[in-house]
Amino acid sequence: MMYEKAHIVLTESEKQKIEVVDCALDDFDRTGICILTYVNTDLCCAKEMVLMPGQTCPEHTHKPLDNGYMGKEETFRCRYGKVYLHVAGEATPDPAVKAPAGDEAYYTAAREIVLNPGEQYTLVPDTLHWFQAGPEGAVISEFSTASHDEYDIFTDPRIKRV
Amino acid sequence: MMYEKAHIVLTESEKQKIEVVDCALDDFDRTGICILTYVNTDLCCAKEMVLMPGQTCPEHTHKPLDNGYMGKEETFRCRYGKVYLHVAGEATPDPAVKAPAGDEAYYTAAREIVLNPGEQYTLVPDTLHWFQAGPEGAVISEFSTASHDEYDIFTDPRIKRV
Repeated sequence: MMYEKAHIVLTESEKQKIEVVDCALDDFDRTGICILTYVNTDLCCAKEMVLMPGQTCPEHTHKPLDNGYMGKEETFRCRYGKVYLHVAGEATPDPAVKAPAGDEAYYTAAREIVLNPGEQYTLVPDTLHWFQAGPEGAVISEFSTASHDEYDIFTDPRIKRV
Repeated sequence: MMYEKAHIVLTESEKQKIEVVDCALDDFDRTGICILTYVNTDLCCAKEMVLMPGQTCPEHTHKPLDNGYMGKEETFRCRYGKVYLHVAGEATPDPAVKAPAGDEAYYTAAREIVLNPGEQYTLVPDTLHWFQAGPEGAVISEFSTASHDEYDIFTDPRIKRV
């Protein structure tokens, strides 16, 4: 299990709560993510996420909501493996990784940030982003404001986030 | 190093930023804590903290501030070792650990919560609390709203948090 490779200790009840997110694409090996939410209150949230080797968490953003929520500020910290994070901004000339073949139309954020273990990056609210693991997969901690996954906006209209 | 015992990977620049907090008591082996702040924005904060064996982080609370800040909500997650967290509330009848000898007057929160690796506890804002490591020490992740350490209120009037 990838959490064990990163030496992250989970309780038995947490292991049962790991969310396998296939984004309703039925293509989990290529596009999807596993997420364990440690805490998610009205104020802040922490998750431990796993990408399998080469797997991609598809492009999305966290919009402001009518209740005054300003969108999600999030910090991704690589704990194991390697993460290729892509955010809106000036395109990286020779990116190390590509969007899943055939789905390129749904990947527009082209500034690539490489995160090795111990490296992290903070996204301001409502930044379009996607990320892909290197050949060993990746374990990524996320520290953020409140998480409202059901309101995530994905670039790919086929995606449903339950 | 305790971070290594917990298999937590830090960059070289992070290792230089670890804050050794002795609380101006000059009694670090008994009372103090090491803190690495991963991120601390206006919205949320994440830290990785280390207690040496038997070391105590002294009793304090995070008060609301005049700017509308409601006090710090914080989740402590034990990554390594054992943590004896004490929070305001009904006193635990036979607590496993005691306040540092001679300083008992400055330790009033008496509800004891034991955290083993993978276990965590969330404090609502403005909860009086202190915590002590077991014989192996402890590594503790903190996920919280914004951190304003300089406004922490300690029960022990001798303590200064720079």
